Amino acid sequence: MRIALDAMGTDRFPAVEVQGAIQALREIPGEFELVLVGDEAVVSAELESVGDYPRDRLSILHAPQRIEPGEAPASAVRRKGNSSIVVGLKAHREGSVDAFVSAGSTGAVMAASLFLLRALPGVDRPAIATILPTAADSVVMVDAGANVDCRPVHLHQFAHLGAIYAREVLRRPMPRVGLLNIGEEPEKGNELAVETHELLTSDRRLNFVGNIEGRDIITGACDVLVTDGFAGNVLLKFYESIAGFLRGILKRELRDVDASPDLRKVFEALDYTEYGGAPLLGVNGIPIICHGGSPPRAIKNAIGAAIRAVETGMVELTRAELTAAMERMGGDAATRAGRLAEGA
Amino acid sequence: MRIALDAMGTDRFPAVEVQGAIQALREIPGEFELVLVGDEAVVSAELESVGDYPRDRLSILHAPQRIEPGEAPASAVRRKGNSSIVVGLKAHREGSVDAFVSAGSTGAVMAASLFLLRALPGVDRPAIATILPTAADSVVMVDAGANVDCRPVHLHQFAHLGAIYAREVLRRPMPRVGLLNIGEEPEKGNELAVETHELLTSDRRLNFVGNIEGRDIITGACDVLVTDGFAGNVLLKFYESIAGFLRGILKRELRDVDASPDLRKVFEALDYTEYGGAPLLGVNGIPIICHGGSPPRAIKNAIGAAIRAVETGMVELTRAELTAAMERMGGDAATRAGRLAEGA
Repeated sequence: MRIALDAMGTDRFPAVEVQGAIQALREIPGEFELVLVGDEAVVSAELESVGDYPRDRLSILHAPQRIEPGEAPASAVRRKGNSSIVVGLKAHREGSVDAFVSAGSTGAVMAASLFLLRALPGVDRPAIATILPTAADSVVMVDAGANVDCRPVHLHQFAHLGAIYAREVLRRPMPRVGLLNIGEEPEKGNELAVETHELLTSDRRLNFVGNIEGRDIITGACDVLVTDGFAGNVLLKFYESIAGFLRGILKRELRDVDASPDLRKVFEALDYTEYGGAPLLGVNGIPIICHGGSPPRAIKNAIGAAIRAVETGMVELTRAELTAAMERMGGDAATRAGRLAEGA
Repeated sequence: MRIALDAMGTDRFPAVEVQGAIQALREIPGEFELVLVGDEAVVSAELESVGDYPRDRLSILHAPQRIEPGEAPASAVRRKGNSSIVVGLKAHREGSVDAFVSAGSTGAVMAASLFLLRALPGVDRPAIATILPTAADSVVMVDAGANVDCRPVHLHQFAHLGAIYAREVLRRPMPRVGLLNIGEEPEKGNELAVETHELLTSDRRLNFVGNIEGRDIITGACDVLVTDGFAGNVLLKFYESIAGFLRGILKRELRDVDASPDLRKVFEALDYTEYGGAPLLGVNGIPIICHGGSPPRAIKNAIGAAIRAVETGMVELTRAELTAAMERMGGDAATRAGRLAEGA
C-alpha cells in the first residue's frame, strides 16, 4: 500500500509533513510506503536534515508548484498542473498511490478530487466528513462544508457515506445516524430536515436514531451527524474556536493542567490533532484533508485514517452501498451520478 | 411602568419567579411595578412565605391555567385562554402592562405573541434574539429559532430588529451587524446568505461588517449576528451544551475556581443567567422569553431588559425604522406585513 502525502500543504511545509511522515512510518504498524509530493529539492533537503528514517519506505514525487491558501480553487487547479495537489491526485487516479493526504487548500483538494477522481455512482455530491470530539465517542459530521445548498436526497447520501466511514474507519459496527435539527419530533425543522427525516426513516439499511439537536452533540448521542454543509461548517468552526478560546484561558490560568487526568482528557478531546483529518467521501478515491495549521501528529493520524480506509476497501463498499441505496430510492440519483461520472 | 411576569413559567414555579421579582424590585433602580401572572392562591401563598417585599409595587393578575412545556403551542394557546401566557399577553395588548416576561414554553409565548400582539408593519417574521457571550462584548443573534425557512428579505429585517435591540437595550451606539456565513467573501455561502449579503450591503442605515464565520463569533467580531432560525438554533443549543459540559468538568476538577479572576470571568461569560432573556422582536409589544431552568437572577435580568426596552421606546423605534427600511427596499415586505397586521 502506498499513501501520497502533500509535502507543500501546511503553513510550515515541508518540515511538518516530513516529521509527520516519519512519525507515521515509525508508529503505525503494517506494510505501507509513503510518497511525499512536492518540490524535490526542497523536500529532499528537509529529509537530509532530519537524519535517519526508513529510506526504502519513503519516496518523493516531484511537484514544483504550490497552490496557496488564498487562491480560487477551481482556477488554481486548472492553472497549476504541476502543483502538489494536482500531481498527488493524478497519481492516485492512475493507481500508483492508494490515498492522498493534504493539509493544503481545502477548496483545491475538493475541486481537484472532483475533477480527477470523480464522484462515485449513487453520489450526487461528495461531502467532507469531520470528526467532532464529544464527552463520549467522537461523532462524524457529514457534510462539514462542501455543499452549502442541499436537497434531501443529498443528505440521504451523506448519511450512507458517513455510516460507511464510521463503520469501516472508526470501527463502529452499527453506527447510529442522527439528523441535525432543531427539535426531536419528526415534523420539526426546516423543509430540508423534515423531508430528509422521512428518507432516513424509510431506509432500513441505516441505523437512524432520529433528530439530534445542537445540545445532543456533545453527549455523543449519535455516531454520524447528517447536515448540510452550511450548518455543518458553522458548527465546526464555532466548535474549534470555542475550544481554543477556553483552552487558551485555562492554560494561562492553570499551570498544572497536566496534573489533572480529567482536565487532560478534556483537552485531548478538544484537540483536533488527535483525529485523522477530514476525508472527502463519495469520490472514487481517498482524499483526506488536514488543517493548514496541523502539527506532525495530526498528519500522522490522517495517514493512519487513510491506511484504514484503504485496508477496508472503503471506496468499493461505498460504490456498492450507495448504488444499491439510491436505486431503491428511485434510481434518479444513482443514474444521474453515474452519468456525471462518465461525462466530460 | 408595569412589567408583567409569568409566575407559572419555570420548572420551579412560582418560587423562582417570586424571588426574581423581588430581586428586581430591590436591585433595579427606577419607577416600575411588577404584575405576577398566575394562579392567585398559589402565587400569594408563595409571596406570604418570602416575608417582606415592596407590596405597593407588586400585584397579582389571576390566571389559573398553565401551558405545559410539552404541549403543542398553537392549540395550547387556543385552548387555554386562562393560562398565564395568554392572560399576560392580553394584558400587554390592552396596555395595562408594558412588557411580558415568561420562562414558560417558548413556542406558546411566540404563538400567543403573534396572535395577540401581531407583527409590526415592515416585519414579515418576528424573530427571537438571543445573547451569546463572547471573549469581548456579547453578541445578539437573530434569529435563534423562530423561523426555520427564511428568505433574504427576512434576514434583512432580522438585521434591523437586532440592530435596534443592540443599540437601545444593550447600549451599543453603532452596532456592527454581521451575517453568519461559511466564508469571508461576499460570494461565499448558500443562496440565502449570498442574496442577504447583497441586501445588507446596499442598506446604508446598517453598519454591516460583512460575513461572520463560526470561528469569529467567540471573538466578538460583531454586535448583531444575522442568521436563519435553523442555523441559529443549532448554534445556540450547541453553545449552551458545550459551555455546560466544560463547566461541569472544570467545577469538579477545580474546587477553587473562584480563586481565579480569569476563570471566574469565563464562567460568568458562559452563564446565560447573566443575560436578560430572549426577546421576541418585531411584534407590537415586548415579550421576553427565559429558559425554563432559569434561576431568580435570570428572571431579574430579563425584567431589567424589559424595562430598558420600554424606556427607550423600542417598539415605536422598530415600527418607524422597519417601515422606512422595507419601503426603501421596494415596499413589498412592508405592505405585506401591514396587511397581515390588519387582517384576521
